[in-house]
Amino acid sequence: MSRTFVVVGGDAAGMSAASKARREDPDLDVIVFERGDWVSYGACGLPYYLKGEVESLEDLVAVPPERFREERGIDLRTRHEVVDVDPERSVVTVSDRDADRQFDQSYDRLLLSTGARAVEPPFEGMALDGVFTLHGMDAAAEIASYLGIEGPDEESPLEAVAIVGGGYVGIEVAEALRARGLEVHLFEMLSHVLNPFGEAVAERVEEELRAEGVRLHLDTAVESFRSGGDADGGRVEGVVAGDETVPVDAVIVGVGVEPNVELAERAGIDLGDTGAVATDHYGRTSEPGVYAAGDVAELRNVVTGRPDHVPLALSANRAGRAIGATVGGTPTPVGETAGTAVVKAFGLEAARTGLVDEASAREAGFEPASVTIQAPSRAHYYPGGDELTVTLVADRGTRRVLGGTMVGREGVAKRIDTVATALHAGMTVEEVEYLDLSYAPPFSPVWDPVLTAAKVLSGKLE
Amino acid sequence: MSRTFVVVGGDAAGMSAASKARREDPDLDVIVFERGDWVSYGACGLPYYLKGEVESLEDLVAVPPERFREERGIDLRTRHEVVDVDPERSVVTVSDRDADRQFDQSYDRLLLSTGARAVEPPFEGMALDGVFTLHGMDAAAEIASYLGIEGPDEESPLEAVAIVGGGYVGIEVAEALRARGLEVHLFEMLSHVLNPFGEAVAERVEEELRAEGVRLHLDTAVESFRSGGDADGGRVEGVVAGDETVPVDAVIVGVGVEPNVELAERAGIDLGDTGAVATDHYGRTSEPGVYAAGDVAELRNVVTGRPDHVPLALSANRAGRAIGATVGGTPTPVGETAGTAVVKAFGLEAARTGLVDEASAREAGFEPASVTIQAPSRAHYYPGGDELTVTLVADRGTRRVLGGTMVGREGVAKRIDTVATALHAGMTVEEVEYLDLSYAPPFSPVWDPVLTAAKVLSGKLE
Repeated sequence: MSRTFVVVGGDAAGMSAASKARREDPDLDVIVFERGDWVSYGACGLPYYLKGEVESLEDLVAVPPERFREERGIDLRTRHEVVDVDPERSVVTVSDRDADRQFDQSYDRLLLSTGARAVEPPFEGMALDGVFTLHGMDAAAEIASYLGIEGPDEESPLEAVAIVGGGYVGIEVAEALRARGLEVHLFEMLSHVLNPFGEAVAERVEEELRAEGVRLHLDTAVESFRSGGDADGGRVEGVVAGDETVPVDAVIVGVGVEPNVELAERAGIDLGDTGAVATDHYGRTSEPGVYAAGDVAELRNVVTGRPDHVPLALSANRAGRAIGATVGGTPTPVGETAGTAVVKAFGLEAARTGLVDEASAREAGFEPASVTIQAPSRAHYYPGGDELTVTLVADRGTRRVLGGTMVGREGVAKRIDTVATALHAGMTVEEVEYLDLSYAPPFSPVWDPVLTAAKVLSGKLE
Repeated sequence: MSRTFVVVGGDAAGMSAASKARREDPDLDVIVFERGDWVSYGACGLPYYLKGEVESLEDLVAVPPERFREERGIDLRTRHEVVDVDPERSVVTVSDRDADRQFDQSYDRLLLSTGARAVEPPFEGMALDGVFTLHGMDAAAEIASYLGIEGPDEESPLEAVAIVGGGYVGIEVAEALRARGLEVHLFEMLSHVLNPFGEAVAERVEEELRAEGVRLHLDTAVESFRSGGDADGGRVEGVVAGDETVPVDAVIVGVGVEPNVELAERAGIDLGDTGAVATDHYGRTSEPGVYAAGDVAELRNVVTGRPDHVPLALSANRAGRAIGATVGGTPTPVGETAGTAVVKAFGLEAARTGLVDEASAREAGFEPASVTIQAPSRAHYYPGGDELTVTLVADRGTRRVLGGTMVGREGVAKRIDTVATALHAGMTVEEVEYLDLSYAPPFSPVWDPVLTAAKVLSGKLE
């Protein structure tokens, strides 16, 4: 008798797992339940859809549903929501949104890849027309429609938009909406945008945002959204923060995401300290036969060795694929996260990996030292290029590199990978200093900025 | 009594050593003898001077001689050639080119950083006017003058130039001279250009060269250069190869470099199998107190563990600096080479590190497997970008990554550093596959091309 692998949630982790499991074991029955209409789409591309660089939402779909069904033999059911899990009986309860009925589906192995959702802060006026969070394809379609920017070349007929939250989604959306001719107000509660990227990156990004006409409201806690009429209905017309009310035509709230753990909780599955589902090296949860992967699950941090919750695309894809392999018969670890990330902020590239400041390194139990340097992206005589700002953090005791950040106009996105690779290898500052990295005048100075940072940090550790 | 550190040769390795030694030990007497006029210049920038992107040769100088003398307290003597070394007496014999005299200088520590020179193949007609090798600032000045391209925006009044040798200098000079409006013939004896970069890179670079109007003569051994008049004098007018004589107005020969080991040999210092000066982990030669670094010296290859001769700028700078530190009192290893290199070929970036094909890996004693993949440089939906071609080589027994290459229109130069870092860490294919590398739609697909290559290679190793 063939075994059944049930996957809950049809995005990066879920579809990777389903595809890999079928490839490993063609006799396996693989059923994916996705409560929405979309599967396997690139959520990271949504800001570029808003900007108009991606023409239609369909372009973001990596693999169309038919291909999963016909070529990969996956029983993919969209608009089907799993509403309960009974690990004792190895059964999930599924609600078919179109047929208004529920049914049970048994499983041998179960993957919870229910993702995360945008945090909805308890601001007064969150329910007004024109207040959005950007999470998922449908939200992007609604925002585009409201702003009148459904075609790739359309300028918005509206005037001003507020973005609440200066994380990477906020920054990317700011760039998108400036390109649509909108006045953009970016509200950030903390004193800097891009908090996980550290101060050195934030300062340069803020300068860039201002130069591109984004109105920055730092250290500014939003209190509520106002409409023209009564507080509970109608279109949003202003953002209230302190003494000020900033008039806007729309609001996009991007203050982070939280894992969709309700189903896991209902099944009695343990959550970790981060609030996401606790998993082991193979993505197994506390319930036998039940796995979790993607934005809903924890992953071990390669620097701290502790469980971490870093909801990013690569980790989700990789963990999903690994669990697919495991379920298909080849036990495969889900991998670890270094929290490596990069974001485009208008003309700047900003990147991070590992522990990026002394405070977070100390909190993780290290005795940190750090340096921030400026170094050119090309040979001093080669035209073009930019000064990169590089931060490197290390542990004094072991001299191990703990993390770093980088910001500049070129050569940042993939240069951070050198540091990320060093983190995985557990390299010391001196080992990084001695790397034989590439050099040619158009691409780097002789001493790559990463090497220069390591050299300076090594001197500081002596 | 203060000690004396004598350095022979004032470019990357020599000046790095001199500067570092003085910083470590301000009481040290540091004397640098340089037989030419230039010190501390970026030879890698010469093609860009020929192209006109670098305005003057002076722009290539990293640190002007006065600064070495005045700020760093180095006794720097240009136009002084060391003609002999007597390790028994710890004395060098120096010829002052301007005063036509010789004198002895004693040393406590000696560094031979005499560099390398362009190989001059024994072609008939090498002595004709208009036949050059490109090595050093003076050669670049002569070429520019002969071609009539001394100003940054000048088109050459000549018509056609032959470049003999399809290594990276040949490729860079081809780009430079096309930009000067010249017809460029590139002669390569082997069946591909860029031999150390492997076939997958070469094929794309050749396509690019042809698209940019470079006339490629592959598999073509040059036999001689012809002038209009008698064979021994006058201006070059043609390149003879097989049955063909290609009419040209100038020839640039770039068929490789060879280390300037004559002085070391005269001193009875051991050379290694590569023909360069043999050194240990601290850059020490077979004679006590005598070091060697830069293009004249061997360096341990991080993949094979054997001595190697890779005359590149970073290794020279790093080894020089390390020897300076050692001489100044802090024993510091010179580091290893992975042979990491990148070259711009018109619109392409081509990069390599480690052992880049199965043949060279087998020769080094491994049992190799390799893959070559195509992968996009950006998310599939993000506009722009290019397909990258990535090759990865690993050892079947240990699963260790041995090297790789990459070519494409963007994101190559610094992406190769991930592979280089993995080589230094001795990572397996699976460890590379599990790296948490950066992702954002403008810069990479979710699975970075390096990860995809590792994934495919891992499958092949099973």
